[in-house]
Amino acid sequence: MNVEPEIKLDVKLAAGYLKMPQSKVQGLLNKRILLQNWDDYQHVFRFDKNVSKIEHGSVLYQKDGSFELIRGFPKIQRAMLLGPAINNHFSKIGSIVVEEKMNGYNVRVADIDGRIAAITRSGLVCPYSTERAEHLLNLDFFTDHPELILFGEMVGPDNPYVPKDIYGIQSLEFFVFDIRQKGSGKPYPIYERRKLADEYGFTQVRFFGEFPIAQAADVIAEIIRELGKIKHEGVVIKDPQMVLQAIKYTCSQSNCADLRHAFRYYNDYGRDYFFSRVVREGFQSVEWDENESELQNRCLQLGESILRPMIDSIRQIKDGMRISDDVQIRVRDIAVVSRFEEYLRKLGVDAVFEPPQQVEGEYLVKIRKLNQSTNDKTDSMFKGELW
Amino acid sequence: MNVEPEIKLDVKLAAGYLKMPQSKVQGLLNKRILLQNWDDYQHVFRFDKNVSKIEHGSVLYQKDGSFELIRGFPKIQRAMLLGPAINNHFSKIGSIVVEEKMNGYNVRVADIDGRIAAITRSGLVCPYSTERAEHLLNLDFFTDHPELILFGEMVGPDNPYVPKDIYGIQSLEFFVFDIRQKGSGKPYPIYERRKLADEYGFTQVRFFGEFPIAQAADVIAEIIRELGKIKHEGVVIKDPQMVLQAIKYTCSQSNCADLRHAFRYYNDYGRDYFFSRVVREGFQSVEWDENESELQNRCLQLGESILRPMIDSIRQIKDGMRISDDVQIRVRDIAVVSRFEEYLRKLGVDAVFEPPQQVEGEYLVKIRKLNQSTNDKTDSMFKGELW
Repeated sequence: MNVEPEIKLDVKLAAGYLKMPQSKVQGLLNKRILLQNWDDYQHVFRFDKNVSKIEHGSVLYQKDGSFELIRGFPKIQRAMLLGPAINNHFSKIGSIVVEEKMNGYNVRVADIDGRIAAITRSGLVCPYSTERAEHLLNLDFFTDHPELILFGEMVGPDNPYVPKDIYGIQSLEFFVFDIRQKGSGKPYPIYERRKLADEYGFTQVRFFGEFPIAQAADVIAEIIRELGKIKHEGVVIKDPQMVLQAIKYTCSQSNCADLRHAFRYYNDYGRDYFFSRVVREGFQSVEWDENESELQNRCLQLGESILRPMIDSIRQIKDGMRISDDVQIRVRDIAVVSRFEEYLRKLGVDAVFEPPQQVEGEYLVKIRKLNQSTNDKTDSMFKGELW
Repeated sequence: MNVEPEIKLDVKLAAGYLKMPQSKVQGLLNKRILLQNWDDYQHVFRFDKNVSKIEHGSVLYQKDGSFELIRGFPKIQRAMLLGPAINNHFSKIGSIVVEEKMNGYNVRVADIDGRIAAITRSGLVCPYSTERAEHLLNLDFFTDHPELILFGEMVGPDNPYVPKDIYGIQSLEFFVFDIRQKGSGKPYPIYERRKLADEYGFTQVRFFGEFPIAQAADVIAEIIRELGKIKHEGVVIKDPQMVLQAIKYTCSQSNCADLRHAFRYYNDYGRDYFFSRVVREGFQSVEWDENESELQNRCLQLGESILRPMIDSIRQIKDGMRISDDVQIRVRDIAVVSRFEEYLRKLGVDAVFEPPQQVEGEYLVKIRKLNQSTNDKTDSMFKGELW
């Protein structure tokens, strides 16, 4: 058995760095709020909850006798009504910038001890994302700027979390949407960030423009309608100086796509996931002052997004099949496959990895993520159990 | 200030009656699982959770030096798929009885200390339901059978919890669906219960018949389709001997009516409420093997049941109005109005009572139940707050 050596956090030093009492840091460890990463990253501790001003998903590790802190993703709140939300939230500035919100998964990429690590939203170093980031990114950036963190979205079909074909991406790409300092989490203002990212040739999320507050809601509504037609997710509305928090807004088509996916695995998703997406539809319809035929169309879309995938799953299970969420990864280093398999296992994901296929000098691995709860619950109904 | 004298439970005696250790009974009191009723019923203790075999909502009170226990409503589990559920659940008996499941609120009526009390699902003595039961029921039953409890549904428009016009009831009626013994909770077999209730002239829930297990699912599907057309709720499927637990099944139209009501007050209802009703639609569609046009119709119904009431509420609040759930009660004894007002206040319901109107020798009182959470949340969105 491969017993991992336990790595201890230097509580005194960490408390000094975080400006917290030692007892608090020790308490976080005891309550398993401050947790170790796995394997090569056991010395990288992650915050499993918000703690004071440190976001959930922040990571902390020792470096050169002190510590470094990689702050988590800042919470981006959602506008339910574009007009009121923009006017209220950005009332102190004259204009806002609109960038695309892409449908993939969030990772932060930063230098940890001289090599880069891709850290997911929850503060885990993902071996697959790390291997991909090594190939997708110009690593000079991290040599030149070891104090900076790239915040971005991993997007495309070779995506084990949120695979999407809608962007015309062949495999997987990393879209930068933020660059921040280690420690403070201080962000680059938008135009400086875009310039810096360009200098290193990074792909960035689409920039729609800078708009005066008074026109922003109308312009964004138009952008949202266009993005909806091509099934894209939505936008993030930002203060050009990155002082005010950004807010997000999504297309109805994206809400419905989320529902279609979630209801296929209806018993594996949280009920808040369904509810929040349904409520967005109501507010958008009111803000857009829809007429009877638009409203009826929205009702049908919503009902179909909920019922059809659920019914497909129930029928499939009735016919003796098991439903699974089929994803794939593509790696150059075959050793990453087993590391990623172990990683998913530790996350509690029930996944079956098929044998790697060689494709254009890389290995493509299909993964079936089994949605046990939906399979088991549906099956039990056909066996005559009661809800 | 009207300070109510505290009434203590005789823990030793209660423990002996319940066959529990004294420490357990004391623990239930300390943890506020065993709670007092209010006003005239402070000596009636209610179980706020399931405790061993005693159901949530059971009530316990001292009588003649010992105790009496009125057991809670037995949990009636739901069939998602009629065929498999009936075959599995009732495999040990030859036939089942089908009775109507009505859409109102559950009350148990029993003699407590020489007068009747109407007890809601949670074990509270409701002053309104008690006053109504006194007029609706032949009270000889309780003189003749002080050891029995009537289980029934209060149905009709003069209903402060679930008002319904669909049954052609002028004001409020009490439909018996079960008669059980105090203490043991032992039920009367169906035909004996129907006979006994008939003898006292009680209204009972509709009896559809007794059907062999092999035909039951088809017959019930037909009943459900017919009940759906007239907007009724569904059926309860019972063992004629009342040994096996009953199970329930509802019409799509009733699920959708529930959703329409709940989404009007979208932020006041639990998310499980929405989810469970949506899932029922999926299973019914599969079991009934619906074709494309039936399925499309079901999707539209579902989407409309969710979005239209929510959109109506959002629009109304946008226009500066506040939404409320408007109900009414009708009493002979005007003093019951203020008792019921106080009762709702203690329950945490924010309700505005309008002045009583005299109608045919009774008092009709309109009540506006304010759904604060939906009002406040929606309003905050128009003020530009973020979700």
